Amino acid sequence: MTSSFETFMSEHKPEIEDRLLNEVDELKVPSPLQEAMRYSLEAGGKRLRPLLLLATLDSFNKDVRKGYDVAAAIEMIHTYSLIHDDLPAMDDDHYRRGKLTNHKVYGEAVAILAGDALLTHSFKMVTQSNHLNDQERVWLVDHLSTAAGPEGMVGGQLADMEGENKQLTVDQLEYIHTHKTGELLAFSIEAGAYLAGATFEQRSLLERYAKNIGLAFQIKDDILDVEGNADLLGKPVGSDDENEKSTYPKLLTLEGAKEKMVSHIEEAKSYCQKAVPSPSFLLQLADYIMERKY
Amino acid sequence: MTSSFETFMSEHKPEIEDRLLNEVDELKVPSPLQEAMRYSLEAGGKRLRPLLLLATLDSFNKDVRKGYDVAAAIEMIHTYSLIHDDLPAMDDDHYRRGKLTNHKVYGEAVAILAGDALLTHSFKMVTQSNHLNDQERVWLVDHLSTAAGPEGMVGGQLADMEGENKQLTVDQLEYIHTHKTGELLAFSIEAGAYLAGATFEQRSLLERYAKNIGLAFQIKDDILDVEGNADLLGKPVGSDDENEKSTYPKLLTLEGAKEKMVSHIEEAKSYCQKAVPSPSFLLQLADYIMERKY
Repeated sequence: MTSSFETFMSEHKPEIEDRLLNEVDELKVPSPLQEAMRYSLEAGGKRLRPLLLLATLDSFNKDVRKGYDVAAAIEMIHTYSLIHDDLPAMDDDHYRRGKLTNHKVYGEAVAILAGDALLTHSFKMVTQSNHLNDQERVWLVDHLSTAAGPEGMVGGQLADMEGENKQLTVDQLEYIHTHKTGELLAFSIEAGAYLAGATFEQRSLLERYAKNIGLAFQIKDDILDVEGNADLLGKPVGSDDENEKSTYPKLLTLEGAKEKMVSHIEEAKSYCQKAVPSPSFLLQLADYIMERKY
Repeated sequence: MTSSFETFMSEHKPEIEDRLLNEVDELKVPSPLQEAMRYSLEAGGKRLRPLLLLATLDSFNKDVRKGYDVAAAIEMIHTYSLIHDDLPAMDDDHYRRGKLTNHKVYGEAVAILAGDALLTHSFKMVTQSNHLNDQERVWLVDHLSTAAGPEGMVGGQLADMEGENKQLTVDQLEYIHTHKTGELLAFSIEAGAYLAGATFEQRSLLERYAKNIGLAFQIKDDILDVEGNADLLGKPVGSDDENEKSTYPKLLTLEGAKEKMVSHIEEAKSYCQKAVPSPSFLLQLADYIMERKY
């Protein structure tokens, strides 16, 4: 693959975003629901999960278009999880990505339903994908529901909420993040590897890449909450402190957290280089996770 | 099929209930999430959707066990929808089936997550079913996500909430109920017909059966809210009136609503008799929908 990482991002990110919005625009549903779904889908964001899936396909020199629909489905699930996490009963956040959160604009009832709708519809994006055969569709729905479900993301969110106002250990913090954000990130890579026809050995090396970038991603989030720029983040900094959340900087000091992040990224990169024939974009995504400003 | 309808119900209902509870008990998840999921699944209920699916398989003289996992998945989705509908931001209900609603016991955050978990996991029940091949799994996930998603149940719930405190026409009321409750009831029958290998003609007749029992089901709900027994219902009567909801008795008078219900049941039965070789249980389910006390 000769194109640069920037070209790769600018070529494929709009494809995923168009797909998400077209999907919602084509629904025949009451307009407040459609608007609320669209609002959060077009709120921007890094589209990290879709890009990880596509970069994994690329790392095996495969046509990334095979993964477009699944990548969009993952982003749809990610978006639903943000809407529900922001609700007053959960994190009670008013801003995300510089915009009011979904329930601040549409009210709680519509926000809950928009989340439910995005979650449910994401599975349909997989079953409807023309780029996949039935065996692939079943595998993807099965693993996506595991990653996003009670043993994955939902369980992690619950553990996160239960951990508030408690002093957690680094191990407990890792449990939370491995589930809350790690599982869906890992699924993105796993799905790419599966669709690329990776060997068992390659998949297990990529699993370690995924686990390490997942943890690095979360440590970076915690660091940004301490020393990030509120304008770039699109939300206030210091909210972890305010919510008395356990974070890596608190448990390890800011310097300690940075060291841990760098070591996870280094480890991720070393597994990745062993795993795939063309690791370039996956390596650059690892760096991007560590260097991002939001 | 020689067994009676009562035997049929008492044989298969516990199978579905065991499956639902075992499924949750086997999850490795934080205990409040597991308890909250279990609480609502074991709160009882008519299990009407699973029974419709199994009765449809039976009406084609097929082994109903093929439908167990899908039937349980549908009930899981139905259960999630009740948890979310009861939330303070939605209908703000305190009791359901004689028990406190999920959020009254576990709090709103856990209730939202328990609903999300049940919804997500229901698709996994389909992909994991040993009774199905991949083509069937894909068809079922695809149609289930349509019935439960933005163009189905979720859209209906939104329209229902938007219709509160407004004077609706019978047509508007039908739109709401066709989506809010009708789609998932219809899917139960459609899935049974699909798994039984029904012809196009049979499926379209059963679709009309489904549409009519769906509407009769809702009219009966409205009637029970007027003249039902609160102890049997497990919730207060008169809540529609209190919430200023448009109902069939209000739009058509109580007698008019009853007539409309009977006519839908008669119509349903006539389509059903034309559709399938052994309609007995489907006919009895139609009567049961009309005569039920809760």
